[in-house]
Amino acid sequence: MSILRIASAVGLSLAVAFSLSAEPSAAQARKKRPAAVRTLPYAGTAEQLRDRALQGTIAYALVEDITTRFGPRMAGSESERRAAEWGAAKLKALGFDNVAIEDFPLTSWVRVSEKVEIVSPYPQPLVATLLGGSPSTPREGIEAEAVVFETFQALRDAPDGSLAGKIAVVLQPTARLQDGGGYGYASAIRSSGPQVARSKGAAAFVMRSLGTSDHRWAHAGATRRADDVVPSFAVSPPDAEQIRRAARAGTLRLRVNGQAIVPPEGRSQNVVAEVRGRERPEEVIVIGGHLDSWDLGTGAIDDASGVAITTAAAKLIADLPVRPRRTIRLVWWGAEELSQPQPRPGLSGGRDYAARRQASLLQHVIASESDFGAGPVYSLSLPAGFQTGPFVTTVMRVLAPLKITFTTTPATSGGPDVTPLAEAKVPVFRLHQDGSDYFDYHHTADDVLERVDAKKLDQNVAAWAALLWLIADSDVDFRNPPPPPAPAA
Amino acid sequence: MSILRIASAVGLSLAVAFSLSAEPSAAQARKKRPAAVRTLPYAGTAEQLRDRALQGTIAYALVEDITTRFGPRMAGSESERRAAEWGAAKLKALGFDNVAIEDFPLTSWVRVSEKVEIVSPYPQPLVATLLGGSPSTPREGIEAEAVVFETFQALRDAPDGSLAGKIAVVLQPTARLQDGGGYGYASAIRSSGPQVARSKGAAAFVMRSLGTSDHRWAHAGATRRADDVVPSFAVSPPDAEQIRRAARAGTLRLRVNGQAIVPPEGRSQNVVAEVRGRERPEEVIVIGGHLDSWDLGTGAIDDASGVAITTAAAKLIADLPVRPRRTIRLVWWGAEELSQPQPRPGLSGGRDYAARRQASLLQHVIASESDFGAGPVYSLSLPAGFQTGPFVTTVMRVLAPLKITFTTTPATSGGPDVTPLAEAKVPVFRLHQDGSDYFDYHHTADDVLERVDAKKLDQNVAAWAALLWLIADSDVDFRNPPPPPAPAA
Repeated sequence: MSILRIASAVGLSLAVAFSLSAEPSAAQARKKRPAAVRTLPYAGTAEQLRDRALQGTIAYALVEDITTRFGPRMAGSESERRAAEWGAAKLKALGFDNVAIEDFPLTSWVRVSEKVEIVSPYPQPLVATLLGGSPSTPREGIEAEAVVFETFQALRDAPDGSLAGKIAVVLQPTARLQDGGGYGYASAIRSSGPQVARSKGAAAFVMRSLGTSDHRWAHAGATRRADDVVPSFAVSPPDAEQIRRAARAGTLRLRVNGQAIVPPEGRSQNVVAEVRGRERPEEVIVIGGHLDSWDLGTGAIDDASGVAITTAAAKLIADLPVRPRRTIRLVWWGAEELSQPQPRPGLSGGRDYAARRQASLLQHVIASESDFGAGPVYSLSLPAGFQTGPFVTTVMRVLAPLKITFTTTPATSGGPDVTPLAEAKVPVFRLHQDGSDYFDYHHTADDVLERVDAKKLDQNVAAWAALLWLIADSDVDFRNPPPPPAPAA
Repeated sequence: MSILRIASAVGLSLAVAFSLSAEPSAAQARKKRPAAVRTLPYAGTAEQLRDRALQGTIAYALVEDITTRFGPRMAGSESERRAAEWGAAKLKALGFDNVAIEDFPLTSWVRVSEKVEIVSPYPQPLVATLLGGSPSTPREGIEAEAVVFETFQALRDAPDGSLAGKIAVVLQPTARLQDGGGYGYASAIRSSGPQVARSKGAAAFVMRSLGTSDHRWAHAGATRRADDVVPSFAVSPPDAEQIRRAARAGTLRLRVNGQAIVPPEGRSQNVVAEVRGRERPEEVIVIGGHLDSWDLGTGAIDDASGVAITTAAAKLIADLPVRPRRTIRLVWWGAEELSQPQPRPGLSGGRDYAARRQASLLQHVIASESDFGAGPVYSLSLPAGFQTGPFVTTVMRVLAPLKITFTTTPATSGGPDVTPLAEAKVPVFRLHQDGSDYFDYHHTADDVLERVDAKKLDQNVAAWAALLWLIADSDVDFRNPPPPPAPAA
């Protein structure tokens, strides 16, 4: 399909939607916008959705409901299960089509207790958490000399066996970047540190939390689950500084104790709901967020916000007098956070979704997850081949007033739970959120409702609703990008 | 003594000090200040001390040492004891006179464990802490229906017996005021709540932490230790909001479990050191901070900062080529935080200091403690009778450049540990610090070195050093204020 066909096709369908749509919003009635004249007609409904979202959506109330009713929602927990059941009922009540709970097996992991202390030279307790999936220490804990590494690379460079019986400590900090790149850069410390420490002979592993604030939160998060790792902990950033100062003063000894259990026969589940397409329902746009959270906080920014943003956006479209041509499929994924015992992969919810749909993956037009907190969207990236042209032009005419820019680098990831789809060549997009403070709170006890601002949440909903409409009511085919332009002579 | 005698007396002594003082500071050498001409000569040393402090003092390093070496320093703990011993050695090394540790008996209290959960309607764990001095719950905890009160007054107004077997919950928030008045207003909830709850028949007491932030910290703090109280907990502010939302949805049931022990034969101690006066050493100005802290954080703002500010200020004066006329006595008080079993009063360190000096209390010219964090000083208040006149004029000429104003309301409190002195009619002053964010962190795990800014600390030192010099090298007698001016005819 050529790009030129998009505009007319979308234009037609949106003209229909527009004529059927509800009365103009109060804001529109107040000021007749001259822009309407200059805007391509098929963007009208998208603009309407955008402006409606900015007047207030159900997103914040959804975050409040999910975090208040269910608190922490660890993958495989009773709480996660109850949240999914409530969610299915809620989505039906909101008018979604084909609501279903799809459950799948999971090896869950339950934190019981954790304690990290400096024994010498300056005895004191530290604020720490057992990494998710870590094996337990012996019941009496592990007390040993600790060796401090300023970077993960320094630990990697330590000779094999050089840490025999000791505790390896990595103090490398996480840089604050708007796009979360600091976390991406440092995350190997958490995923691979326990394995590298063991390969050097260490008895335990302690890392500075992957967090960007200097407040005293320990950040949870998944690590590798395998036989080749040692019990592993994250201390808060101030405690990492305390360890550094203590280590300068003399031989550092730490005592660590972490206990966790792995219940037999764990299960988790995805909740799936649709805004069924009116013309080509088999063509699916997959969106959503993940319902599970870490156990320290109530998962307001990670990821009740993503669930709420995408649900509120789809609900705005479901409330239009006509359904879009294609189907929007909303998923509240389960078990995004918890790694699985090697060699099984993680992202159990995303993988289960994809595995059940092997036969229809080619009909997945595009996919994206909202899983980066509650900060405002600042840019959009689309699949390769769609960095210029009328689709982008129209989309950005609608999104630019939200202070959103267009990123010309093609989207290569649509979020963790759609990774299995991306691996199967389903195109992805990304509405990039400002995550400047996301890793201040990510995976901590402080990830609670107070971290969410309703206005910023609604800016996200506005962007998602407008973009989803423009995709779902078009026949733009991200699976078949236009040929690149001929090279200049 | 008339006020008119002050200027000449102070002027003389300061002229001596000035002529003997060390070479002009680098900053002074760089720019010869024309102000020197217009400044009354006896303020010169005070200005010099002020400017020297702004170039950097030992205060931040002291906070770092105390918090790093000893971590939390609960009243009566081994850690508090070791910090005092280290402090005595440090003060000797810094050149202080008559350094001594004065120890006293204390009924200490040691936290063992604490857990607060919503059982229904929305089961989940909460972030909470057992109040300091609270009795333990039964080993299995207490699970009961909870009754929520929006204010402490509402609990007070509940009929006797109306809470039989239930858990009383007070959700009243703490207002953010620059001078800490919000905490003062709300603090009766913590001190008296457990007693009032019991008087209504309650089995336990849960309060919203006395904290001004909406981050998820539980704030520790002392409550009444007596037979007429129930086990008592503070939840974080976000958890108080969570409780409110849960209670709206149905009958609220909570489960609380707190365990603490009271070791036999507890002791604490004050560390006392002097800058001995050269002319009237028996006349004493008492300053200091408290060395003990709560057990959740490392007591950086409460109160290693106060210890460090006053120590650094006295050290600047001790480093002058002559001692001031009067003695500056620096005290690192012990056991400020922990209440004592009724009917014994708290403030054990402050009371022990005063009790040992009954015979010399009349020779205490003035007293003040720095115990309000690490924020900058914004105003000075002096004892009644000294709201106008040449002493204030001179003092404020030195302090105003530090962005300090003069408060015409007389000082009635000099800080908690000098309360026993104030009760014995020793005059007090106050260098009021900006505490706008003090109760965000006060008594939480987040009270650590990262909360302290060295520049702001040094602004405090500048104010303390200058003021202390002007008091210590004068014979202004705050114990005998001038008669009030005759009423206008």
